[in-house]
Amino acid sequence: DLPLAVIAGPCQMESRDHAMETAGALVDICRSLNMPLVYKTSFDKANRTSLKGRRGMGLEASLEVFAEIKATYGCPVLTDVHENDQCAILAEVVDILQIPAFLCRQTDLLIAAARTGKVVNVKKGQFLAPWDMANVVAKLDDSGNHNVIVTERGASFGYNTLVVDMRSLPTMARQTGCPVIMDATHSVQQPGGQGTSSGGQREFAPVMARAAVSLGIAGVFIECHPDPDAAPSDGPNMVPMGQMADLLTTLAAFDRLAKSHPLSIG
Amino acid sequence: DLPLAVIAGPCQMESRDHAMETAGALVDICRSLNMPLVYKTSFDKANRTSLKGRRGMGLEASLEVFAEIKATYGCPVLTDVHENDQCAILAEVVDILQIPAFLCRQTDLLIAAARTGKVVNVKKGQFLAPWDMANVVAKLDDSGNHNVIVTERGASFGYNTLVVDMRSLPTMARQTGCPVIMDATHSVQQPGGQGTSSGGQREFAPVMARAAVSLGIAGVFIECHPDPDAAPSDGPNMVPMGQMADLLTTLAAFDRLAKSHPLSIG
Amino acid sequence: DLPLAVIAGPCQMESRDHAMETAGALVDICRSLNMPLVYKTSFDKANRTSLKGRRGMGLEASLEVFAEIKATYGCPVLTDVHENDQCAILAEVVDILQIPAFLCRQTDLLIAAARTGKVVNVKKGQFLAPWDMANVVAKLDDSGNHNVIVTERGASFGYNTLVVDMRSLPTMARQTGCPVIMDATHSVQQPGGQGTSSGGQREFAPVMARAAVSLGIAGVFIECHPDPDAAPSDGPNMVPMGQMADLLTTLAAFDRLAKSHPLSIG
Amino acid sequence: DLPLAVIAGPCQMESRDHAMETAGALVDICRSLNMPLVYKTSFDKANRTSLKGRRGMGLEASLEVFAEIKATYGCPVLTDVHENDQCAILAEVVDILQIPAFLCRQTDLLIAAARTGKVVNVKKGQFLAPWDMANVVAKLDDSGNHNVIVTERGASFGYNTLVVDMRSLPTMARQTGCPVIMDATHSVQQPGGQGTSSGGQREFAPVMARAAVSLGIAGVFIECHPDPDAAPSDGPNMVPMGQMADLLTTLAAFDRLAKSHPLSIG
Repeated sequence: DLPLAVIAGPCQMESRDHAMETAGALVDICRSLNMPLVYKTSFDKANRTSLKGRRGMGLEASLEVFAEIKATYGCPVLTDVHENDQCAILAEVVDILQIPAFLCRQTDLLIAAARTGKVVNVKKGQFLAPWDMANVVAKLDDSGNHNVIVTERGASFGYNTLVVDMRSLPTMARQTGCPVIMDATHSVQQPGGQGTSSGGQREFAPVMARAAVSLGIAGVFIECHPDPDAAPSDGPNMVPMGQMADLLTTLAAFDRLAKSHPLSIG
Repeated sequence: DLPLAVIAGPCQMESRDHAMETAGALVDICRSLNMPLVYKTSFDKANRTSLKGRRGMGLEASLEVFAEIKATYGCPVLTDVHENDQCAILAEVVDILQIPAFLCRQTDLLIAAARTGKVVNVKKGQFLAPWDMANVVAKLDDSGNHNVIVTERGASFGYNTLVVDMRSLPTMARQTGCPVIMDATHSVQQPGGQGTSSGGQREFAPVMARAAVSLGIAGVFIECHPDPDAAPSDGPNMVPMGQMADLLTTLAAFDRLAKSHPLSIG
Repeated sequence: DLPLAVIAGPCQMESRDHAMETAGALVDICRSLNMPLVYKTSFDKANRTSLKGRRGMGLEASLEVFAEIKATYGCPVLTDVHENDQCAILAEVVDILQIPAFLCRQTDLLIAAARTGKVVNVKKGQFLAPWDMANVVAKLDDSGNHNVIVTERGASFGYNTLVVDMRSLPTMARQTGCPVIMDATHSVQQPGGQGTSSGGQREFAPVMARAAVSLGIAGVFIECHPDPDAAPSDGPNMVPMGQMADLLTTLAAFDRLAKSHPLSIG
Repeated sequence: DLPLAVIAGPCQMESRDHAMETAGALVDICRSLNMPLVYKTSFDKANRTSLKGRRGMGLEASLEVFAEIKATYGCPVLTDVHENDQCAILAEVVDILQIPAFLCRQTDLLIAAARTGKVVNVKKGQFLAPWDMANVVAKLDDSGNHNVIVTERGASFGYNTLVVDMRSLPTMARQTGCPVIMDATHSVQQPGGQGTSSGGQREFAPVMARAAVSLGIAGVFIECHPDPDAAPSDGPNMVPMGQMADLLTTLAAFDRLAKSHPLSIG
């Protein structure tokens, strides 16, 4: 089994310098832990709670920075797509196209992402059962792209609350055959929980990550930021960059133990 | 208070003749009951469970039929939009643009729909609390469009199940100030409940409609079909056309009673 | 179809005078509306959130008051039982023994209640699917008691929240063959929602009642109090006595309409 | 930090020989792993789905067997109580009295259990938020018993389904100050999921156990049986005895790693 992959970075690309700095910090940590890193950041936050929420640098400006990150640090980059037309443009630079959870059933977006030939990471919708991700992956497969990753980010649980059912991780692995990622920071969001923005419980991100890694998953997705309380989005659930080295060190230890004790489900 | 509005029609536009026939039948029923009718049908089903699911006639062909329905029957028409570019094109003919539940937080789609100046009907996401629809409506308002309708269609409740919280209807009315519609047929869907397609419990659509209408809502949304079991999508939850006259007659009686006994909430 | 039955009264028996006064007020209202009344109150609140919560007058003292209510007003009375031994003692006076929702699967309590020969009202557990009430009723049936009523009072929906699925009312009717009651006040509880006591949304009790009555149910259960904010328990979700006449008048109108338009499910 | 405690045994005491045999097998496994064992079995299943379900040997007969197990193997025993009177009787032999989840808010049962002075293990109700267990523990504390354990066994998630929110484990630890146990087998029950009995997904019990143990909890609760498919209750979710040695060996490894990397929450 491969070592735990890390998909990490700030929620949105705030500036070229901010992106380079956070990428550099994460590259250093992951290299020292021998963990593969994918740098993640959004060029556009397409579903802010309010129109007044900052949305990111936009596609054009971001592509240049993504290219610079790849050239400078040699690590693959991931970003999320919202419209069909964006897929081909992003695919010129970006290594993994991510389908947001709300959009995981939009057929045309899945097809457009699949046709780029890039790796596609689909986040499981908050409204979807784990076994129903098999239908989502089938759409990508039937579009000729078999490089698919699936990500757990919590299921709707009453109002303004998500819950992670740990059974979803082995269930998705078995039913889709894809690598499974745990998104440890969005799964502790409190959607809409702060009136005009979403709340979050960043203190539980390590709980989610550790429990999931103990099951032998392929990777973790962790949004992080040098100063989450000052971040334009997802601040309440991002992990402070200063805690990432310790967190990933611990997760690496759990990953080694988990992969030397593979779970047999069913 | 205005009489109950009826938004009805088959899930997807299957053919010109099918659309004309179902529109005509609904026009007759609603005229005899003195209920305002909005004919609803989808030109494209953008999130079928499987790629093999039939998707509808497409935008171009549908626009002609929508125009013919309006010319022939004089009733307004509603359809759902999935991509920003579709809004302006549809707005040339369609009277109400509908934002699908999964897409209710996609800012750009909301803005594009708002800018057409047409009435916008937003379905509440299965993952959203009723009070959070105020944020969605604010995006439309802030884009200069105040002709907004909001629709309840169920909230995620465990796996493959939706539940309608009747409190959501007065809550949305109070918090958004918009007319509130009950979608009586999608709220009895069983998402993903049949493996590669969604199931449904059409026998409960009259239950949902009646309970909601008794609260004094602005309208009901009911998908119907001459032969639901033969329909290419949403068959399990559509109401047979042959039952619509009785169902609407009953709902009209409940509507009159409800509006002569307005609820005072809080 | 019989007219809507009303099960009403304060959450707990606070004193003899309080009970007589509230019973008298309800008897007057229901007589003028020609609705059968069952006076409900608890002699003991066995599951307060905190030990410090007041629990009621106790079994012995309450029995005398129940007898006085029956003698004075001629209306049947209902109370809830918590322990097997209480059933036979209460059955000497009380007409309907109620099994609390948390206890709806306690076999011995069901058997003890069944053996009294009295009507047994079982509240559906917050953790139970509507169709699973068939198993609960079968325990009573198999114990020789076929006078069973079932009551909806909400299902767990995330944390500190209940939701009422209106489908549960016709589902329980069909699957158990029993009269179905809607508990309009406990279903708007917010369990544990106030730290050391439960919150509630009494403003939504008329919403729940009206939606349910429109489906043609057998009765409503409504806790009410002359001054809910001063009540020792369930204050946040009890209806002020001063609003009961209007509320029941409205419900009677919906009941007549519902029963002249019976729902056909499946 | 103490090593992971194991609370294990068959769902119900089926016979003296069955109990001695399963206790002996578990004692051997736990001794070799240096894990403290508490033998668990029920003398009475008080809330079977159907009256026809077998309920166990009963209190009197069970007490003798519990005493023999303690004398023979030197391990403490745990059983669940359903009625106030049972507490003092059981306390003569049994080391830990367990409050079933459905009964976790029954004040008198909590008081009766507390007054025995024995350790009390309270299972969190399927309808309770983790933070609301603080109120439950306060009732025991206020009754003079501070030897309290709390157990996670899943929360209601739609119909016939439970979900475990891993955040509940550190939340209960912090809010109650009590040792926290993960019940890995009841949390994979499918309540009512088989019509007249409850289903289960025993293949996921190791998933639940491992994820929870990775968080550094005090113990695991695992029902096990030499032949689960032949067990009179909870067969679908019990772990075969033949898999317990491997399962506990793995959990011991995760426990050591977890306790050398304590989580800091908040």
